Amino acid sequence: VSDRPLIIASNRGPIQFVRTDDGDVIPKRGGGGLVTALTGALQLSGGLWIAAAMSEEDREQAAGGRVDVATEDTKFSLRYLSFEPQEYDRFYNGVSNRILWFLHHYLWDLPRSPRFDEATKAAWESYVRVNQAFADALAEEGEALGGRPTYLVQDYHLSLTPRLLRERRPDARVGYFSHIPFAGPGYFRTLPGALQGELLSGILGADVVGFHAQGWAENFLLSCRSLPGARADLRRRIVHWQGRQVRVRVNPISIEVGALKEEAAAEPVVRARKELAAWLGQRKLVLRVDRTDLSKNILRGLLAFELFLRRHPEWRRRVVHLALLNPSRESVPEYRAYTRECVRAADRINDELGDEDWQPVDFRVQDDYPMSLASYCLYDVLLVNPVIDGMNLVAKEGPILNRRNGVLILSENAGAFDELGTHALGVNPFDILGTAEAIATGLEMPEEERAGRAGRLRAEVRGNRLDRWVKAQVDDLRLGGDPGA
Amino acid sequence: VSDRPLIIASNRGPIQFVRTDDGDVIPKRGGGGLVTALTGALQLSGGLWIAAAMSEEDREQAAGGRVDVATEDTKFSLRYLSFEPQEYDRFYNGVSNRILWFLHHYLWDLPRSPRFDEATKAAWESYVRVNQAFADALAEEGEALGGRPTYLVQDYHLSLTPRLLRERRPDARVGYFSHIPFAGPGYFRTLPGALQGELLSGILGADVVGFHAQGWAENFLLSCRSLPGARADLRRRIVHWQGRQVRVRVNPISIEVGALKEEAAAEPVVRARKELAAWLGQRKLVLRVDRTDLSKNILRGLLAFELFLRRHPEWRRRVVHLALLNPSRESVPEYRAYTRECVRAADRINDELGDEDWQPVDFRVQDDYPMSLASYCLYDVLLVNPVIDGMNLVAKEGPILNRRNGVLILSENAGAFDELGTHALGVNPFDILGTAEAIATGLEMPEEERAGRAGRLRAEVRGNRLDRWVKAQVDDLRLGGDPGA
Repeated sequence: VSDRPLIIASNRGPIQFVRTDDGDVIPKRGGGGLVTALTGALQLSGGLWIAAAMSEEDREQAAGGRVDVATEDTKFSLRYLSFEPQEYDRFYNGVSNRILWFLHHYLWDLPRSPRFDEATKAAWESYVRVNQAFADALAEEGEALGGRPTYLVQDYHLSLTPRLLRERRPDARVGYFSHIPFAGPGYFRTLPGALQGELLSGILGADVVGFHAQGWAENFLLSCRSLPGARADLRRRIVHWQGRQVRVRVNPISIEVGALKEEAAAEPVVRARKELAAWLGQRKLVLRVDRTDLSKNILRGLLAFELFLRRHPEWRRRVVHLALLNPSRESVPEYRAYTRECVRAADRINDELGDEDWQPVDFRVQDDYPMSLASYCLYDVLLVNPVIDGMNLVAKEGPILNRRNGVLILSENAGAFDELGTHALGVNPFDILGTAEAIATGLEMPEEERAGRAGRLRAEVRGNRLDRWVKAQVDDLRLGGDPGA
Repeated sequence: VSDRPLIIASNRGPIQFVRTDDGDVIPKRGGGGLVTALTGALQLSGGLWIAAAMSEEDREQAAGGRVDVATEDTKFSLRYLSFEPQEYDRFYNGVSNRILWFLHHYLWDLPRSPRFDEATKAAWESYVRVNQAFADALAEEGEALGGRPTYLVQDYHLSLTPRLLRERRPDARVGYFSHIPFAGPGYFRTLPGALQGELLSGILGADVVGFHAQGWAENFLLSCRSLPGARADLRRRIVHWQGRQVRVRVNPISIEVGALKEEAAAEPVVRARKELAAWLGQRKLVLRVDRTDLSKNILRGLLAFELFLRRHPEWRRRVVHLALLNPSRESVPEYRAYTRECVRAADRINDELGDEDWQPVDFRVQDDYPMSLASYCLYDVLLVNPVIDGMNLVAKEGPILNRRNGVLILSENAGAFDELGTHALGVNPFDILGTAEAIATGLEMPEEERAGRAGRLRAEVRGNRLDRWVKAQVDDLRLGGDPGA
């Protein structure tokens, strides 16, 4: 992939160390294609991955410095950074999840929240210090590796790291990739001015800034227009900043089709699929698979399904809405309140529209990965309607595993809409009527059109290979001399 | 002002007809400088004002067609348009206040609202029809006046009118002025795509589009970038659209200083001022005067005052926060809920920090205009911290009447910040800590600096004369040939 060693930085590492029943500490690989793609690149180029220690066992490993990791299919080096629990909590929950995540997903109820106060100030100071620790470690490991490494800094937790790293190594080649959206220039100004400047100049420490979708790249460029001293060229996607040209790139991540299909062929998934098929019987399945995140628009999905049933009563008893929800961020009060509201809405819909033989909604809050994969196989309509979403991999995984030529309903605000929108039924996520009618259209679509769309979705997902995503990041950094490339 | 007759259109007219105790119907002038400025221009140029009938008496007048109005100081013609109550309610509450106002002020709690549904669709259809009725009347009256009149279409209720009018009279000279902010391009996309297009193309029917502040003009231009077929030139502030060049202008409205001072000299105000001064005694006054609007940030103002008292306990018993709140849109559930929350917060603060002799907050929800003017005279700190605000005239009226060299705390998101920001203490409205410290800074500011700032505020407000605001709109339309002017 690269002629230079790679150094990857992210909040969560590719490995978590866990203690077995026998008391041994063993590495456990994190899930997801991102880890596969990045560790694959590491193995080819040499280098290491730097991340925050998550568990007590991680911290024990961290104490020893660099760790060489060998799992079934990969071998690479890893370095964990240890933080005091309160420091890490302020960095992770205080700023990353409760400020930056809310900001870039438009999740605040602005007349009431956010409230920047003394706690915010303390949390921000922790955020800065954790980013400094990452920059220190990145600079130090770069030194140790000799030559000029290529740095890949991943995601919004480390927004300040590119600038802090450049201060330490002015000649560094740094890529920054955001896996979430970027707020529009109006909403971005919710942040106090000083924080706006720190975030933008932090990211602009990179040579190349990557996003999953056109809209997020555009929003970042628009926000940079109001940063004093920066000049954003919207057409060429370049920010002129401190004598450098920072390139902004759109580089949508994909999934590992082969690995996903292998997982879906495993025994627990096959069992779950049979169970689900028996439960479904002749009914059609409108499916949602998500984390219980405020950004996922679960509530409006329920209301849209309800409106669909009210407008199309001929579908009653012939369809069920299954929502498989992986519990997420239960320590955040806004998340707990939202999940409760969703459960109440599901109960109300079942009360009002269901009967002894038929409950329209099955709302399951549980971590059941085999059941999620099984449900992908069987949906007739897959509802992916986020308020906003950096990419959304459900929209890619579902069509790959589905066996029923299921129809994808996809929010225009999901990053995946750039690639998949033309083969899906696009919806404005705030438009309950439009979503209700999309459910009807999906269920009533002629078989030929369903098959055509499903086939084109699969082809689109297969066509964008995951290794291309890493390679593009590294190539962009190598082609430093040609900003028009 | 103009060599051509003027035709002004706005939702609310300059006159409301009311029935006296004797049963006579008489015209009653609406308050505010806007009415004075526009009726003054009408009187000079000839022409008329077209508005929606608000009362039963208005409707009776409307039945007779054009009405010639003569009040104490002005004479002009007026035409009221009558709508069915349900049609008007959908236009006014359904779309204007609950969609467009929320959109342009970032007031939605996006994970939950808005929910575009069947009611929205019906409301939008009413919005279109009311705008059509305005366009019909504008075209018809223009025909009747002969020559080519200059049209001034006022505010977001009539966003579609410029395009509809141009369809009826392609040669019309049309100015559109928005008195509220314009949403950033990210937040604007909350609207379903069709509505985005209708709103933007509706406004772009005008020759000149005016806003009170740079930020709103910029946001409008940025939103136009994503309108298919439009090309927005951000630097020259021009939108190329359907073979025309639509100019975007920043034209901040002012107040009538003389009339305001006259009002403040009236007996009821003098009485209120004495009453207030006696009640205050030696305590300093931190004042807020607002409508009970979600956009005004009343809740964070209370929390900031509380935080100020907690961080600066030496100020306890020496200061009081008086909030004078004019009830607004009480039919909108979000508004009722918000006002209740504010009252609860005020009560809690008084419970926790007050004692028998001192209640830190006096929270008054009442329509008491003389008391508002009286309070302007006496504040030591005026808190104007809106979430976002098209202009905010409190920030201009307060300094004109104040007699204590009071300090203005002003939100960076108020349109008035463009003109007054450098003489005020600027705050990010979401920053409670920053606002709390601004209160302390304002109260503790040396007398010389207070006097200097207060003097510069007054000079700035006096320097922008209200008649200039109308003249600029008309001149911009006259100078149609020179987009660079």
